Amino acid sequence: MLTALQLSEARLRIAPYVYHTPVIEQEAINTLSGARVFFKCENLQKIGAFKARGAFNMVLQLTAAERSCGVATHSSGNHAQALALAAKTLGLKAYIVMPEGSPEAKKKGVRNLGAEIFFCENSLEARERTLQQVMEKTGAVFIPPYNDLRIIAGQASAAAEYLELHPDTDFLLAPVGGGGLLSGTALSAAYLSPHTKVIGCEPENMNDAYRSFTEKKWQGNPAGVTSMADGLRTTLGDITFGIICEIVHAIYTVSEQEIADAWQLAWEMLKLIIEPSSAVPLAVLLKYPQIFSGKKVGIIFSGGNVDYASVPFLKG
Amino acid sequence: MLTALQLSEARLRIAPYVYHTPVIEQEAINTLSGARVFFKCENLQKIGAFKARGAFNMVLQLTAAERSCGVATHSSGNHAQALALAAKTLGLKAYIVMPEGSPEAKKKGVRNLGAEIFFCENSLEARERTLQQVMEKTGAVFIPPYNDLRIIAGQASAAAEYLELHPDTDFLLAPVGGGGLLSGTALSAAYLSPHTKVIGCEPENMNDAYRSFTEKKWQGNPAGVTSMADGLRTTLGDITFGIICEIVHAIYTVSEQEIADAWQLAWEMLKLIIEPSSAVPLAVLLKYPQIFSGKKVGIIFSGGNVDYASVPFLKG
Repeated sequence: MLTALQLSEARLRIAPYVYHTPVIEQEAINTLSGARVFFKCENLQKIGAFKARGAFNMVLQLTAAERSCGVATHSSGNHAQALALAAKTLGLKAYIVMPEGSPEAKKKGVRNLGAEIFFCENSLEARERTLQQVMEKTGAVFIPPYNDLRIIAGQASAAAEYLELHPDTDFLLAPVGGGGLLSGTALSAAYLSPHTKVIGCEPENMNDAYRSFTEKKWQGNPAGVTSMADGLRTTLGDITFGIICEIVHAIYTVSEQEIADAWQLAWEMLKLIIEPSSAVPLAVLLKYPQIFSGKKVGIIFSGGNVDYASVPFLKG
Repeated sequence: MLTALQLSEARLRIAPYVYHTPVIEQEAINTLSGARVFFKCENLQKIGAFKARGAFNMVLQLTAAERSCGVATHSSGNHAQALALAAKTLGLKAYIVMPEGSPEAKKKGVRNLGAEIFFCENSLEARERTLQQVMEKTGAVFIPPYNDLRIIAGQASAAAEYLELHPDTDFLLAPVGGGGLLSGTALSAAYLSPHTKVIGCEPENMNDAYRSFTEKKWQGNPAGVTSMADGLRTTLGDITFGIICEIVHAIYTVSEQEIADAWQLAWEMLKLIIEPSSAVPLAVLLKYPQIFSGKKVGIIFSGGNVDYASVPFLKG
């Protein structure tokens, strides 16, 4: 498990490279939810997502020998852009394996940051096989998207920044896909604000984290299911699973319609471009007034990288 | 002319009612422009625009007798929502005259805030005639959209907040329609940061402020011209004209295509929903690298109320 000191060191390590993103409030959301709600805007982070935090924290800890052959990963998008940015900033080569079906905005973001992309089919097996080939060819170091303590320590810094401003928060909500953001958020709260309950928010369609958490046994997703929340189409790793089981308060799920409604609400009321993964905790907030009404709630907006063509409420 | 004390009093008066909006930066915009650019996000203000500042500042100064019959205005949108919010918050009735062609998002916003809407044709003459009728019927006090020192003093608070964070700003860019935001911005800079040059940014198609400023004589726009920047389809008032002539450094204009390109860029790179009026100063920044490159530039994003149907880059 990560210590408070390790989290604090990670935060200081990456501070020169990432933005201290703003926390905003909007009266209309308070009225609608009955809660007092604050949004930590990681959609305004560099590369438009919290993933910049973890990638910088891990790459900054590589030795000179490790850095010399570059870094590699597989990612549907935000982690890919994050790693590409960290590599570019620190003068390393980056090799990114992406599924063909990744949103155009994310492919474009990776290319613009000078990383080399290798496309593969949209399965974990294809991603891992292609990555293995790339690493053998280049000698690059694998920077995993979530299942590593250095990645988790980086992601934890978003919640640390939030809790410093709002230590009296009752509930802190974060989306859960691979679990890097959620386990980092829960660790920051455990050390900095132990009375704050951290809740993981997940699409009903791909509720592996909910089932894993409830049964205290790792669970996958059945083949063929999907969710509009493209950033959450992954399962927990063994490390994130362990942390989440131990210190997360609860995991709640929402339907695709609830995600779509919350997504539209965020654009209209908050004037923020968020990706559907970020709408998942907002959907949880609105679904359970009996839990959140009268409480102070923080929501981590994980990212804002969106293909407009995929946004249902933009269609005439 | 407003004094530094009056500006400071306005800021304190409205502070409990409006948001201290964040200022954000995004590396990608710095790279593109060659400048270091900071955005004051009034699109994240209550009702999604800076107009809340001026409306609160004026309504809070009305006497009990003036408040008793309510407040009225004509507005294509943001000032209408701002006045509706101020009235609702302070327990007054609000009567709003709106042109039929106003964006749906703005009509909806006004209705949701409990104001009574009176529709009219889309000409200044029709708006003023309808407003006159409403005021005669209700006895409501007219709260003008820009041409009043109390409104200007309220709008000035956005730049004051910005300059407190970034006193070493070389250029501060704001859109100009009626001139309330621009004259308030210039006044705040004149008192708080006299070395900061304030630049008004205007659509080429409706360049009345540019011509008025250049010729030091009030000018209107020819009939039939328009701009996608719906918030800037107005002319200066005598008060805003006087202030702008005296203390604004320059006014630059941009084409509709330049506005559209900057608008898309803001959505994609900044993850912020801004309305086209807010894209006008960003377009000016990108059009004149010879002026802004190597400088520290502040841009006031005036608002974020948008009809998706009107956004060119969202169309497939």
